[in-house]
Amino acid sequence: MPQLAYVAGRLVPLRDAHVHVEDRGLQFADALYEVAAVMNGRMLDWDGHLTRLRRGCAALFIEFSMSDAALLAQAQRLVAVNGHRDALLYMQLSRGTARRDHGFPLHARPTLVMTVRRFDFAQRIGQQARGVGVITVNDMRWQRVDLKTTGLLANVLAKQDARAAGAFEGWLVSADGDVREGGSTNAYIVRDGTIITHPLSAHILPGIARATLLRLARDAQITVVERPFTLDEALAADEALLTSTTAPLLPVVTIDGRPVGDGAPGPVAARLAALVWDEIARQTGWKAPR
Amino acid sequence: MPQLAYVAGRLVPLRDAHVHVEDRGLQFADALYEVAAVMNGRMLDWDGHLTRLRRGCAALFIEFSMSDAALLAQAQRLVAVNGHRDALLYMQLSRGTARRDHGFPLHARPTLVMTVRRFDFAQRIGQQARGVGVITVNDMRWQRVDLKTTGLLANVLAKQDARAAGAFEGWLVSADGDVREGGSTNAYIVRDGTIITHPLSAHILPGIARATLLRLARDAQITVVERPFTLDEALAADEALLTSTTAPLLPVVTIDGRPVGDGAPGPVAARLAALVWDEIARQTGWKAPR
Repeated sequence: MPQLAYVAGRLVPLRDAHVHVEDRGLQFADALYEVAAVMNGRMLDWDGHLTRLRRGCAALFIEFSMSDAALLAQAQRLVAVNGHRDALLYMQLSRGTARRDHGFPLHARPTLVMTVRRFDFAQRIGQQARGVGVITVNDMRWQRVDLKTTGLLANVLAKQDARAAGAFEGWLVSADGDVREGGSTNAYIVRDGTIITHPLSAHILPGIARATLLRLARDAQITVVERPFTLDEALAADEALLTSTTAPLLPVVTIDGRPVGDGAPGPVAARLAALVWDEIARQTGWKAPR
Repeated sequence: MPQLAYVAGRLVPLRDAHVHVEDRGLQFADALYEVAAVMNGRMLDWDGHLTRLRRGCAALFIEFSMSDAALLAQAQRLVAVNGHRDALLYMQLSRGTARRDHGFPLHARPTLVMTVRRFDFAQRIGQQARGVGVITVNDMRWQRVDLKTTGLLANVLAKQDARAAGAFEGWLVSADGDVREGGSTNAYIVRDGTIITHPLSAHILPGIARATLLRLARDAQITVVERPFTLDEALAADEALLTSTTAPLLPVVTIDGRPVGDGAPGPVAARLAALVWDEIARQTGWKAPR
């Protein structure tokens, strides 16, 4: 069966899923997006994604009139017709299509596109046991990366640099030496049992998996400190971690090829991973295949 | 006759001109663009646009195999079939279409899209006589704006702020107080007969109209100094100017509502405008309608 996509109100075969060349997402990156996990056929943390999308619309004055219920129904229908149990749902909302002009068009209607692709979350279990490596790159992004827009070229280049170095992720370091986050993941270090991560600001994305991790950690009486940390601190930390929708929790065992702690996944990462997978099972019933 | 667009090798009606939803231009702003002026049916400064596009491809590792001659031929054909004498040619080149993943795809072919729209250059003559106003906004863009990518949301917001304030342009000011450029124009001040403009760097776009203006000015024995200038300097300047492909030379007579010089277009702007329009006439034969 051909895969289907949702484009501006219609389900169409993915191969025929198109937007107009004057869509402002294409010409100006004037668009927001979300990537939500579908696990065991259910949406993980849907409310978090929806809230972030609405917040982005408000910040950018994108007038998106679809109701929460209708958006969820369309997303669930797309997942169902594609027959996916474990997948990533990609939603993109642009300001709409209009004759090219930088300022906002007067009468454009936002363009909503959704696609869904099978995704193997179980691969993360093995990666979690081994840990992953990151490299560091200069954070060249704009100054509102708290908005989840499609202006991702700096993230693309960071990811590509990481891939070329055989690393899982590129950590974006500010001119002041602060580790902000990864190209598509949030970043954490652990020192003396305390989790340290960059505070919410215009310089990091408010990750949904980040919010979940911090909530679970605090509920489990693990101390969380939200403050900037430097690359030097990261290299001297006991452990390091990353999270994202596609990688709920992975230990970071090397940074630029240098070991973090003893260079192996540590006990805090293991404990947090157990909490995160338990929460996923609670929300969706998902279990790792044996 | 319906307007035609060029999409990945084919001429199609503009209304049916689409790209796939997984075009990397749409999902990552992983794309370059150019806007070239067509005046009197001829391309203005084509070589400058082509060189900048090729430079962008090299910097971003976009493997664009079309020859210079073929690209020019396709652009000229598109202009001709649409019957335009005075128009803007928009060219966009993305890294291609691929299943969504930040890193570069292994086998994608770049997607070239071109559209052409009628444009009334003569409107600039009247604006030139009156001058235009600009406002200032914080430069929130990423750190490689020398690459002409479609990641333009900060520029969009600057333009929208300008429009809301009744101004022609938003000037982007760095945290250090330097005026870098406008949202889609380069910026200049004039002091004691000398033109001052931000030097080429990662923080400004190497404008084609900018290069032309500086060449013409130097040829006419007008001193040009390429160095950063502050907003305070701009407010104390004798004159201020902006240039772009769509606005070859406009005097800036107010900044944030405060007059520049005596608040009217000055003699250096008038002299430069004459040089610029002469150059346009030389290249294309274009003359302002009476």
